[in-house]
Amino acid sequence: MPSITIPETMKASVFKGAHDIEYTTVPTPKIESPKDAILKIEASALCGTELHMYRGDVVPKRADYITGHEFNGTVVSVGDEVRDFKPGDDVLCTFTSQCGECWACKDGLSSSCVDSKVFGTWALNGGQAEYVRIPYADHCLFPLPKGMNRNTALLMSDIFPTGWLCVNNYFKKVLYDKNHIANDVILQLGAGPVGLCCIAAAREMGVNHIYVADSVPSRLEQAKELGAIPININEVDNVAEFMKEKTGGKGADAIFELVGNAGALRTAFDSVRSAGFISSIGYHHEPLPMDGLECYLKNISIQFGRCPVRSIFEDAFKVFQKISYKFDKFIDLEMPLSEVSDAYAVFDNHKARKIAFKIDQ
Amino acid sequence: MPSITIPETMKASVFKGAHDIEYTTVPTPKIESPKDAILKIEASALCGTELHMYRGDVVPKRADYITGHEFNGTVVSVGDEVRDFKPGDDVLCTFTSQCGECWACKDGLSSSCVDSKVFGTWALNGGQAEYVRIPYADHCLFPLPKGMNRNTALLMSDIFPTGWLCVNNYFKKVLYDKNHIANDVILQLGAGPVGLCCIAAAREMGVNHIYVADSVPSRLEQAKELGAIPININEVDNVAEFMKEKTGGKGADAIFELVGNAGALRTAFDSVRSAGFISSIGYHHEPLPMDGLECYLKNISIQFGRCPVRSIFEDAFKVFQKISYKFDKFIDLEMPLSEVSDAYAVFDNHKARKIAFKIDQ
Repeated sequence: MPSITIPETMKASVFKGAHDIEYTTVPTPKIESPKDAILKIEASALCGTELHMYRGDVVPKRADYITGHEFNGTVVSVGDEVRDFKPGDDVLCTFTSQCGECWACKDGLSSSCVDSKVFGTWALNGGQAEYVRIPYADHCLFPLPKGMNRNTALLMSDIFPTGWLCVNNYFKKVLYDKNHIANDVILQLGAGPVGLCCIAAAREMGVNHIYVADSVPSRLEQAKELGAIPININEVDNVAEFMKEKTGGKGADAIFELVGNAGALRTAFDSVRSAGFISSIGYHHEPLPMDGLECYLKNISIQFGRCPVRSIFEDAFKVFQKISYKFDKFIDLEMPLSEVSDAYAVFDNHKARKIAFKIDQ
Repeated sequence: MPSITIPETMKASVFKGAHDIEYTTVPTPKIESPKDAILKIEASALCGTELHMYRGDVVPKRADYITGHEFNGTVVSVGDEVRDFKPGDDVLCTFTSQCGECWACKDGLSSSCVDSKVFGTWALNGGQAEYVRIPYADHCLFPLPKGMNRNTALLMSDIFPTGWLCVNNYFKKVLYDKNHIANDVILQLGAGPVGLCCIAAAREMGVNHIYVADSVPSRLEQAKELGAIPININEVDNVAEFMKEKTGGKGADAIFELVGNAGALRTAFDSVRSAGFISSIGYHHEPLPMDGLECYLKNISIQFGRCPVRSIFEDAFKVFQKISYKFDKFIDLEMPLSEVSDAYAVFDNHKARKIAFKIDQ
């Protein structure tokens, strides 16, 4: 094993406030607990969820944190209690940290871990940087899949497992009934990066009828290539009415909601059939746009929330392995980390599907 | 088969407006479609859901309808297309009508039937009367269970299947996992008639830990007798904090919400653990008291809605048969239908657990 020297300072992307991302020099992270590891970042991406903070829709408890929750790299240092990894290992990391020991971690709900933090937030520095500290390294890291390029592997930190979860929530709702899965009509709201992962997962997992609504033509083209039926919301007056027309007045059997605003959730509610299901993966920040009587009368059920990537990694990866070739060019723009501020603006304006950073070290 | 003579007029309870129920003479219903049947009512009850209209919380589209959706009786007349029932048959009826032919009926979702109506509402006259018309009789009626007294059988029209459904929603959420069912901690909000059915069903079905919150001491006593742990909300400052104390800070694994107002739903949300489940059976009439970010961060899932009694009748009845002896004195007050106006007031003031009407014919 080579001896790895870690410099005292590093370059990193730091969140200063809405529309204010700074490329700057900061202290390199150090082991703080015996369960920590330090990674040298080799690949790092920008996720749509980060735009909620960038746009000011969600205001973090404090600024001055290092951004980024999708990254992989090489272990350069581990604490005394890290058993499964050692310096030199190529690894990817889940977008959240989790302890591996609490009731939630043990029950397959790692995103509900009592000490879970999201990388690249006020609670935990992220990986749009040269180095990152990983708490509970044994429960956050996975070996980098053999033969997989690092940019493709970035999708396994968050967005592919999240897309898979959106589908699996619906599978659980129909108790994995193959007849439902094959014949149900799904409406997906949002064809951004997670949305495209969701379509690919759904089609691979046996969903035959999936409509996808978005406003960005390039996304809709990719959605179609992956096997969805595109709906351009600028060309359809009313998505709910459109879905009713396509289903003999019934409505979609289930909704995959990946947008994360009240308008999308209302469209989901209006488009789903009676006793239907909404799998909501979107990061919301507004009051729920339905009232209780509507929910009662429509016999609706909704699953919200963050993906427990750690807990479902193996199941999601089984699907990803089969179709990862579809994602080899998914990251369509690479920019130097020094241009991180521009990168956020480019991504916010839908000028790239998915951006990865070149970490200049 | 005896010839049965039906008079031209009958006595009935008619909804005139909030706090205004009138005992009056109306025309006796007649066969309107070849799928109809006419029942002579032998037993009829008052359900908590009717109090939403009585109190003015929910305003019907029009007044002047016959109230009551829990009843059983004897078939006195059938249309030409009714195959399974004939005059003289003793039957009970589901609290909704359903066609039996649409996608929802065929998919086990009879409460979402495209032509479903609730008896005793502006949409369909009910059974607090001497006679009632049953649309789609083959899909609304069941033979009266042999050896079961009529007042006990009243519980199978709505409240026992509804309580059973509340439990079964949770069973589905945990994919019928016996370990979860036996060990999970449930908080139930509401110990009214449906709530007591829900407790009895849950305990019979394998739920071991069920806390029940209510404000009425007599209900809490009955809840305890049926195997729940009572929480008097007048004696506990904060139900959510109380549940956290009882679960090592985690919160309840699932909530059975049977109250039907925003306060109860908020208590449900605050009391449930991360990634927990709310089975909401309550008939709501207010905005949802959570915002989207809370739902996302808590990874919550919620099932709302009305019980498809027709679709789940056999499953619920299997449980009811085993424990129906516990319900033989459940109806603790019988009043003449002529005193229906008083009966609503008595029920609204929690002066009786469950009221049945003596139909004086």
